[in-house]
Order: sequence, then C-alpha cells, then structure tokens
Amino acid sequence: MGLPQGYTFRKLQVSDYSNNYIETLKVLTTVGEVSQARFEELFAHWDSLPQLYQPHVITNEQGVVVATGMLLVEKKMIHECGLVGHIEDIAIATSEQGKKLGYTMITNLTQIAEAAGCYKVILDCSTHNIGFYEKCGYTNGGTQMVKRA
Amino acid sequence: MGLPQGYTFRKLQVSDYSNNYIETLKVLTTVGEVSQARFEELFAHWDSLPQLYQPHVITNEQGVVVATGMLLVEKKMIHECGLVGHIEDIAIATSEQGKKLGYTMITNLTQIAEAAGCYKVILDCSTHNIGFYEKCGYTNGGTQMVKRA
Ligand SMILES: CC(=O)N[C@@H]1[C@@H](O)[C@H](O)[C@@H](COP(=O)(O)O)O[C@@H]1O
Ligand SMILES: CC(=O)N[C@@H]1[C@@H](O)[C@H](O)[C@@H](COP(=O)(O)O)O[C@@H]1O
Repeated sequence: MGLPQGYTFRKLQVSDYSNNYIETLKVLTTVGEVSQARFEELFAHWDSLPQLYQPHVITNEQGVVVATGMLLVEKKMIHECGLVGHIEDIAIATSEQGKKLGYTMITNLTQIAEAAGCYKVILDCSTHNIGFYEKCGYTNGGTQMVKRA
Repeated sequence: MGLPQGYTFRKLQVSDYSNNYIETLKVLTTVGEVSQARFEELFAHWDSLPQLYQPHVITNEQGVVVATGMLLVEKKMIHECGLVGHIEDIAIATSEQGKKLGYTMITNLTQIAEAAGCYKVILDCSTHNIGFYEKCGYTNGGTQMVKRA
C-alpha cells in the first residue's frame, strides 16, 4: 500500500517550521505557541541525537507537510541491552484523511525501528484507534497509565 | 509513606552491576547475558544524557539493590515544547515485596519528572497492576499497542 502519486515520506527538516508542520500537529493535540526560534532549538536537539529522536513527515504533491510521526528509540538494559521503538505524535492533516497516510507513516516508522534492531515497537492510543493499529500489525499490549501535572 | 529503616532511593551507580541490579531486573522480564563491559557501556551512554535517562534504584540495609526504575524524559514539540516522563523497567526483588518499595519508586520518579517540568508522566502496565498504579495517583490513559520483531 503506497503513498498517493507525488507524496513523500521523509525526515523532518528545519524548513518544515513554515511548511505546515506545527499546523499538522495541532490535529493531534494542544501545541500552543511555538516560535521559529524554539522550533529550531528543539530541532537541533533532536538532530544532535539522531538515533534516539527520528521525527518524520509525509508531504503532498505541493511538498507541504500533511502528516507527522516520531520514532523514539530507547536503549534499555533488559533483553541484552535491547532497543525499544516508541511511536509518538502521529497526526494527519484533516483535509488529507482517507488516503492511508497514517498506515504508511506507522508501517514505515515500524520498519525503521525493526531495521535498527528494536525487539519491539510500542505506542499508546485511545480505544477507538485500536482497530487501525491492528491493521498496521500491532496487538493490544496492556494499559497506559497517566498522571498529569 | 517512607522506606523501611536503612533503605535508600538513589541514582543507579556504575558499581551496581555487581550489586544485584541485573538480578533485580530479571524479576520484570528477560534480561539475558549482560557482561560488565556492556553494562558499563550502556551506563556511560545513559550518563552522557542525564536529563533524558534517569535510572534509579532502592537499596536495602546492606546497601544491596532491591528495586529498579527508569525515568525517561522525552522532549516533544506539542504542548509548547513540553516534556513527557516515561516510567520504565520497574522491578522489585521477590524477597522484598510487601514493603511498598514499588510505591516509593513510582512516587519518587513521578516527583522528579514533575519537578523537571513534565506536563504528564506515563507508563504501561498489565491489567492486574492497574489498581497499584491508581494508588500511586495514576489513571487509565488508553491502550498500549505493541509489535514484536
Ligand atoms: C500513537 C500516538 O500518536 N500517540 C499519541 C502520543 O504520541 C501523543 O504524545 C499523545 C498526546 O496527547 P496529550 O496531548 O494528551 O499528551 O497522544 C497520543 O497518545
Ligand atoms: C511500568 C513498567 O515497568 N512497565 C514495564 C516496561 O517498562 C518494560 O520495559 C516492559 C518489559 O516487558 P517486555 O520484556 O515484554 O518488553 O514491561 C513493563 O511494561
């Protein structure tokens, strides 16, 4: 299942600040005000730890960001110093839904994690998204517990 | 709710390799063979990223590691470049259960995360541990989905 003609899956670039990245993230949750300076600071931090933080996007025929996804690769002691991939901050622009961009984002990030040697890839979702992640090859792994400040 | 007399909550130290750290982790899951050299390599990696990886232990009156817990602090773009604490790899030595070490580990890691400015702290658990995490101040935040390699 590929992307529509002209669409590209690629790493986040620093120029994506003014290319609909923040607007796309807002489909997922609260983003608030992120100035270009703060974006560039966080981008540089992520970029300084390229195995750990692997932010990706999908762009449309116009080269505009229409989907986001982060792969975080954690180095653990368990499983003989095993790696775990965490998939985070998946957002698809509202106008681009129904094009299977979410499926491509998840399966591509999963492949990157597996190629890096992760013994598992995990993510948290709400009940109504379980079916979608099952189509991406995931199964129910337990319960997320949260404490908000 | 404090620790028993003589017990200490502290950061993981490199000398904990030969102080029951690996054995304690084995209560949680598969650890496999981790040589001292590999332990020291991973310890040095974690130590080079001290805001990100914050491994902790509880030691007993003999100074022996009897509980483990990792706080991972992720830097996100959402929530105005917000921080999220991930609590991972909680293990309590079998002989030390019933002393509320798990409670102290979780509440201490949560406090560290909140003091660092995390807007939320999350962890994944199996159904039979939900009640324990509720006592620690957590609520059900959704479903963990997993894909194992
Ligand atoms: C697979 C996926 O994208 N899961 C996301 C998670 O990565 C994101 O950080 C969170 C934000 O929600 P919040 O604003 O309530 O923290 O929502 C979802 O759980
Ligand atoms: C709160 C807590 O400690 N959760 C742990 C998680 O941190 C650990 O990495 C995993 C290992 O299980 P695995 O060996 O099946 O990957 O078990 C539990 O989900």
